[in-house]
Amino acid sequence: MTATLRRPQSEQPVKPTLIDGDIHTTFASEKELLKYLPKAWHRHHEMLGRWSFTGTNYPKESPNAARVDSWPPGGGSPGSSLPFLREQLLDEWGIDIAVNNPLFHSAVQRHPGYTAALARAINEWQIGEWTDPEPRVRASICVPQEEGDLAAAEIDRLGEDPNYVQVLLVIRGSEPLGRRRYWPIYEAAVRHNLPVSIHFGGQGGNPLTGTGWPSYYIEDHTGMAQSFQSQLTSLVFEGVFERFPTLRMCLIEGGFGWLPSLLWRMDAAYKRLHEEVPHLKRLPSQYVRDQVWLTTQPMEEPAKPEQFGQLLRHGNLADRLIFATDYPHWDFDAPGQALPKTRLPDGFEESLFYQNALDLYGPRLLPVKKV
Amino acid sequence: MTATLRRPQSEQPVKPTLIDGDIHTTFASEKELLKYLPKAWHRHHEMLGRWSFTGTNYPKESPNAARVDSWPPGGGSPGSSLPFLREQLLDEWGIDIAVNNPLFHSAVQRHPGYTAALARAINEWQIGEWTDPEPRVRASICVPQEEGDLAAAEIDRLGEDPNYVQVLLVIRGSEPLGRRRYWPIYEAAVRHNLPVSIHFGGQGGNPLTGTGWPSYYIEDHTGMAQSFQSQLTSLVFEGVFERFPTLRMCLIEGGFGWLPSLLWRMDAAYKRLHEEVPHLKRLPSQYVRDQVWLTTQPMEEPAKPEQFGQLLRHGNLADRLIFATDYPHWDFDAPGQALPKTRLPDGFEESLFYQNALDLYGPRLLPVKKV
Repeated sequence: MTATLRRPQSEQPVKPTLIDGDIHTTFASEKELLKYLPKAWHRHHEMLGRWSFTGTNYPKESPNAARVDSWPPGGGSPGSSLPFLREQLLDEWGIDIAVNNPLFHSAVQRHPGYTAALARAINEWQIGEWTDPEPRVRASICVPQEEGDLAAAEIDRLGEDPNYVQVLLVIRGSEPLGRRRYWPIYEAAVRHNLPVSIHFGGQGGNPLTGTGWPSYYIEDHTGMAQSFQSQLTSLVFEGVFERFPTLRMCLIEGGFGWLPSLLWRMDAAYKRLHEEVPHLKRLPSQYVRDQVWLTTQPMEEPAKPEQFGQLLRHGNLADRLIFATDYPHWDFDAPGQALPKTRLPDGFEESLFYQNALDLYGPRLLPVKKV
Repeated sequence: MTATLRRPQSEQPVKPTLIDGDIHTTFASEKELLKYLPKAWHRHHEMLGRWSFTGTNYPKESPNAARVDSWPPGGGSPGSSLPFLREQLLDEWGIDIAVNNPLFHSAVQRHPGYTAALARAINEWQIGEWTDPEPRVRASICVPQEEGDLAAAEIDRLGEDPNYVQVLLVIRGSEPLGRRRYWPIYEAAVRHNLPVSIHFGGQGGNPLTGTGWPSYYIEDHTGMAQSFQSQLTSLVFEGVFERFPTLRMCLIEGGFGWLPSLLWRMDAAYKRLHEEVPHLKRLPSQYVRDQVWLTTQPMEEPAKPEQFGQLLRHGNLADRLIFATDYPHWDFDAPGQALPKTRLPDGFEESLFYQNALDLYGPRLLPVKKV
């Protein structure tokens, strides 16, 4: 700590014989910065602002990527008020069960002890502030994703508590999720019959694309679907599904239109290159068919409505898609608006709005008694 | 240079008072190594072998990724003998025009002068050894891809020679291909009315996936389709197609089943985030529709044949797909076996086997007189 220092008063001007080669100034306020930034860039500055070679970001005008109407009237951030969530989501849309996916990027902190403590805090907080007072909200077990052993310990600690319905990972970590360092997570999830769900986002030190950093947020937003493809490829070919045949996984907020062609491509590659991966016993598409679910938000929007039904058949998706609103995020899908206006397979709405989720989560999703 | 040195003979054993902390030995031969490598890994060693955190590789047993029957009887590597190429490809399958894409990774060398010289050598060699003696073979302008100005100079040097039908890039470079450093390439191509084609492969220092290095070659082979998606996303959102409205591009050997859902996703993102990219004037899918072609090898193999026709409609692909054999590579598609056994759109075979290529390449593809 340094006290304020002042140069003694003097009549003589100081000659330039003392040079400080390093000082730092900063804008007094955002307003001062905007005074100097050309007006054409003000909107961009407000919407996205400074964003460098890191992981995922959200538009600045939507902290937590929130809908503009989702700020609780009593103050606090979107998604921070249970009464307002009841009013704006659960009651408004008649939602019986909502799976909570807290995204504090606890998964991708560098300090192993801190990230484990942060995950534990988030898990306790979910029960204390959300699931206990509102049984319609179910909790996810957040884990220190990059530390397989610490993650498994947290899953073992909470895995038999019926308030938690899944283990939560993020799609972008340090390495492909099929690699051995992550196997303790899957092993622990299977031990407690918990699905492992992987959500949009995260950061692990690598650029989003295999060819370097894109320039625009819209590329990041579009390109996240490629991370889902990479991760599913890794999980299949590393043999995670073969090794853990009772493991169920859900891919959240990554879209699903890319799934059919990825399955075709994996199957074709497997037919020619299976010698490299003798630990696989089935076609890649068969593992995915039996063990992978996906959420709808964002709902794919084919150019023509009738192509939606074809897409469902290409990916055998009708019994694997789970409806999601993504509340309170800015790209919220309302239940009434989510479906394309086209003829859908018989029973599809029932599957989408509850049966597929029950298949994935099992009895944990049914109303639970307070412990 | 050091002469051979020998320790003088002595009856006394040498005491361990001299320690060399760093010497190096190596296996005398592959055979010696195999003597010590468990038999279970011999096949892997022969097929793929050592492969670290670099770019794309090919199975070792297929140097140049070649078909086992493509080694010329007179010696040399697959694809190195014009008489054998005539016999095995052009005459065997009745191919009238074959576009040559030499893949020496000249695009991704680090030395700017060397990579420019290498590209120039490859370009001269194509004419001297292939296109001059065999007009059915057309040449590509290889360029030092990472150096926009040097690449443009090479395109300007050769762009009016009708033997060259396109500029050739690889899909994995140092940065997303929409970025400004690459614009001189597109500008030069447009100046000479040459399409820019981007081929599977390359390496730029980043792992293939946005989440790190995969373990298996089969992941690399499957995952390259994600690089094609990333690059098309970059080209669209950086405004390359808007800036160069007469630019035509072709994506070679990256598949095409991923295209429909990528277009749906880009259009949906653009509707919500267009403010960030005000340099775009049209929907992403409209640029792709007008300016992008794709080759068939590998032909997508939907689970059910009738899904192939649906896929064509989802991506408006019927007039954009160009047939390719990928000769002499191991995953060669023969013209007679390329198409799924299903009802195809009227005129599709004509489109696939020549009309779409003529649309992309223009009159350069028609028989040329010797200069």
